[in-house]
This record gives sequence, structure tokens and C-alpha cells, in this order.
Amino acid sequence: MRPDGRVQPAGMLAQLTSAPKPPDAPSFKTFERRVPDGDTLERLVCRDCGHIHYDNPKIVVGAVITQGEKFLLAKRAIHPRKGYWTLPAGYLEERETTEAGAAREAMEEAGATIAIDALLAVYSIPRISQVQLIYRATLASPEFAAGPESLEVGLFAWDDIPWTELAFPSVVWSLNYFREVQGVKVFAPFTNPVGDLGNGAPA
Amino acid sequence: MRPDGRVQPAGMLAQLTSAPKPPDAPSFKTFERRVPDGDTLERLVCRDCGHIHYDNPKIVVGAVITQGEKFLLAKRAIHPRKGYWTLPAGYLEERETTEAGAAREAMEEAGATIAIDALLAVYSIPRISQVQLIYRATLASPEFAAGPESLEVGLFAWDDIPWTELAFPSVVWSLNYFREVQGVKVFAPFTNPVGDLGNGAPA
Repeated sequence: MRPDGRVQPAGMLAQLTSAPKPPDAPSFKTFERRVPDGDTLERLVCRDCGHIHYDNPKIVVGAVITQGEKFLLAKRAIHPRKGYWTLPAGYLEERETTEAGAAREAMEEAGATIAIDALLAVYSIPRISQVQLIYRATLASPEFAAGPESLEVGLFAWDDIPWTELAFPSVVWSLNYFREVQGVKVFAPFTNPVGDLGNGAPA
Repeated sequence: MRPDGRVQPAGMLAQLTSAPKPPDAPSFKTFERRVPDGDTLERLVCRDCGHIHYDNPKIVVGAVITQGEKFLLAKRAIHPRKGYWTLPAGYLEERETTEAGAAREAMEEAGATIAIDALLAVYSIPRISQVQLIYRATLASPEFAAGPESLEVGLFAWDDIPWTELAFPSVVWSLNYFREVQGVKVFAPFTNPVGDLGNGAPA
């Protein structure tokens, strides 16, 4: 995860990573809102150098990772939701495929090498301008270990998942969706459950 | 589409929209490359105000839109690939779901109201840091018309599609994928064809 989220959203409404820095944050002090030439929407433009700051929706990639009947979860060492359990997931980087990003996050956060099997879900979280692509994967090798962003990493049987200590709604959704298509080879990826906390029901 | 792409990539390698502005573009003249505190990668940081510019991968949303057996295509009025035919598609905006973005682009570029049915494909184009989500949709109402970014909009039977005048590889992929799952209700979304021009074979 990258440190471009300074806002710590309240509890579970935070979605896998923190929200982007608000436009009135100190580092934007030379920026003003206006519609650039040829554009249709207002953007933040630097009065001094003309640099246009585009707020793009951010892509989060991650995976529900299993070994046999157990699920790999990581306990967050960072805000937001420090101390809560999550799926290995984080921001896609430049020049990265979504699958490579999900595999990198599994390695960074959980020391895990994974084999991706299917796209489990695509969530839109418009409140924080985030799109999440969550894959279904297995551990390709039995080793795992907490990375710098995790306090602890563990394999949990379904009944032992710390349901009341999961970090984000999309972690709950993803685990339940996984169970819904367990053993199913071909399925359409899920989207946000309608009316759920994510505030991102598809249009 | 938004005007944050100044580079006009050569021919079909451009992917539905133009590439992001390069870091050495004039408006970045006060920025330097360095690793911000708590980060692991170099970012562009303004020497004057400390603003950190994150280059995030961009999300493009679009749809293969049909009416009966015909496909709705738009002839591009803008660079890149001006004069070539494309699917209605463009950058996802802030605070927008992917489905709402695809519907907005259909309206903006082709004056079309659409009903989304399934996620057809997810393409990663790492060369230009782009992730494309292409939906399968039908015209919800028979009207359509060229928007400001299109020269012309038309419905084409499969055999009449201007195959040699399609704007981007992902347009070709998407039309072919559409045919592959025509009539199929539940399917896994496609990804880049391995080894194709998009230079984005999944990891």
C-alpha cells in the first residue's frame, strides 16, 4: 500500500486501503479548481506551473488465498483498521497487470507465492473512488510470513475466521463469495452486494 | 475521454484512450523524482510545495453494445486513432461505479442508453498503465447519435464491421470474445489474448 491516503476513515467503511488525500490538503496549496481547455470537468490546476492534477479512481488488487480448506489472512500493521484481519491486497502500481499486482501484494503482505485461478469479484466503491479486483488463488508454496505491513499472517479454517475482526466489508463479501462458487470452475465475477456498507451498489 | 493524454501512440497500439502525460512534460517543471517518507517507490514530488504526484494506473470502462444482431460502433473524432471505429469507452471518473462509467461513455460518445448484462473482459495494458473493463450490453432504447468525440455512430452486422478500420486491439478482442459467449449467460470474463499486440498478457 502507498502512503497517499492520509485520511483515516471510520472503521469498516474504509475499503482495503485508506481514502485519497483530500483536495484541500496542504500540498495542494498552489492549486485552484478550474476546467482545463478541452475538458468538461473541473480539475485541480497549479496556479504557478499549470500542472493539472487528475484525481483518478484507484485500482486495488487482491486475492482470497486458500490452502486446502484454509484461508490466508493478514493482520494489518498499518492504518486504517490496524490490528484487523484482511485479505492481502493493495494499490495496483504503474506498468503492472492486475494479476501481477495481486501476486505482488500477496508476497509483500504475507510472504506468499500464489497461483491465480479466477477473477472472484469486481467492487466499485464510489465513495472513495476505488475499484477492487479480487482474485481466487491458492498458495503455490506452503511458506508465508508477515511482511512490514502485517503484524501476523495465518491460515484459518472457515469456522475459525475472526469474523468480528475483519478489516473491511469487501473482505467479508469476498470470503462469502468464495464459498458460493467453491468448486465451480466457470462463474461471473461478483459485484458489491446491493445495499451493503460499501455504498457502491452497481448502477 | 479526458485530455490528460498528450502522447499520440503509433497506430493500433494506442489503447482506447491516449497514454498518460509523461513525467517530463512541461507542467512538471517544479517536480523531482524521489522516494517519499514511508513509501518504497520513487514518485514525482514538487520541490516548491511538497505535493506528491502519484501515477496511478488508469481505468477505462466501455461496452460491446448490440441491438439484435448488430453492433454499435463509433468513429473517433479525436486523437489517437481519429477516423477509426471503436467501442464507446473512456476513463472512469471519480466517485463513479464501473457500470455507471460504461453507461456514461455510451451516452457521451454515442448518445446511447444501454442495459449492461455481464462483464465481458478485463484487460491489463501495462505498457500504458491501463486496466480496461469491458461490459456486454444492449441498446435500451433505439436512439443513438454521435457525441462531440465521435464523427459518426452506426450499427453493423458482424460481416459489415469495418475490421480493417478498428481503432484498437482491444476492440477486436472484445468483438471476438462477444461472439464466443453469445447466448451464454454465465461465463468468466476474458483477459488479454496471450502474445497479442496489447503487450499485456496476464502474469
